Amino acid sequence: MREVRILEIKQSVFADNDRQADLLRQDLKEKGVFLLNLMSSPGAGKTTTLMRTIEVLKNTFKIGILEADIDSDVDARTISESGAKVIQLHTGGMCHLDAEMTRQGLTGLETSDVELAILENVGNLVCPAEFDTGAVKNAMILSVPEGHDKPLKYPLMFTICDVVLINKVDVLSYFDFDMEKCKEYIHMRNPKAKIIPICAKTGEGIEEWSGWLKEEVISWREKR
Amino acid sequence: MREVRILEIKQSVFADNDRQADLLRQDLKEKGVFLLNLMSSPGAGKTTTLMRTIEVLKNTFKIGILEADIDSDVDARTISESGAKVIQLHTGGMCHLDAEMTRQGLTGLETSDVELAILENVGNLVCPAEFDTGAVKNAMILSVPEGHDKPLKYPLMFTICDVVLINKVDVLSYFDFDMEKCKEYIHMRNPKAKIIPICAKTGEGIEEWSGWLKEEVISWREKR
Repeated sequence: MREVRILEIKQSVFADNDRQADLLRQDLKEKGVFLLNLMSSPGAGKTTTLMRTIEVLKNTFKIGILEADIDSDVDARTISESGAKVIQLHTGGMCHLDAEMTRQGLTGLETSDVELAILENVGNLVCPAEFDTGAVKNAMILSVPEGHDKPLKYPLMFTICDVVLINKVDVLSYFDFDMEKCKEYIHMRNPKAKIIPICAKTGEGIEEWSGWLKEEVISWREKR
Repeated sequence: MREVRILEIKQSVFADNDRQADLLRQDLKEKGVFLLNLMSSPGAGKTTTLMRTIEVLKNTFKIGILEADIDSDVDARTISESGAKVIQLHTGGMCHLDAEMTRQGLTGLETSDVELAILENVGNLVCPAEFDTGAVKNAMILSVPEGHDKPLKYPLMFTICDVVLINKVDVLSYFDFDMEKCKEYIHMRNPKAKIIPICAKTGEGIEEWSGWLKEEVISWREKR
């Protein structure tokens, strides 16, 4: 596996994260960098989904990936195999990234040649939902083995996400997962959420998800 | 389903959580209540494992369950079917329980007739690991679909747990999960951790886990 860069990011000194997020969003708009914030529980399939997404979109956009973890560099090493630009961020034990930490990561990645930046946030359904990273869109992955009741237990995460990918649909028959109930619970939290069932392992649903993302980036670029 | 009690717990006013945890542990020792803190990612199988554990141990100990969630009462309703005493704690958005919040929960549960109290912490591999709840032992569940690399990414959780249950072994053949590597990574973080593969759905490994817990409670009661 390739060597990857590791950046130890520092905890923020800013009290007003919403203000920092708006400033970062404005900066990225001027630079033409679309930032997507990708969240999920540990092991829901963020990195595998990213590998598939890069495969589909790498000839359309110049892609850069921020891999945030408390420790290790396994995800950045995996992503580096795709050929995409990647940096591993270590959060110093922090359970989420805020806007200033995201800014540090983007600076470390060097985004002058990046059109689509994707932040793989720390695996956690609670804290990352509370901090605006400055992203244009928020996406999350819920995996089938986690169960269809998660929107009931982790309301904020489902409320703030523009799109929910329901991953690992290849193992649906092995788990007591009710897809219709899950969609109903997600829409209880967020009636506008786009829901796309996928299987990152087999590639099912990846065209639809990548198509959604591509349209979002293109319409954002046209409007800015 | 039965009606369950819901307690909205308040954020702590104490700066020194370690001191509060030691005080709670001392109080529980005097009262003869063994407290187990059970942690995992969302959807790893905490509630199903608890249902199995209650089934095996309910004639040995008087059991009380604290179900901590950000929202909903689905877990407490499930547990109430087992006949065990249970209370649903709502954390007001908090991503973990600390010692003072645990004390509020135990007071709400009323532990005068409880010998084994189990706290099902908020589903999260990061924050709960940072706060001593006052428990005698910490347990965690890692489920097969999450992947064997989690001890590399969430080091503290694996470091502080006395026992790691590897759940959902019935689906091992559908996932790229290396059991030997997983055990190796867990022991890298915590050489003393007891590791028990289980399947809460089928009951596999539940006797070994319940036996371990029973021995821990009995030896604690003899020593106190």
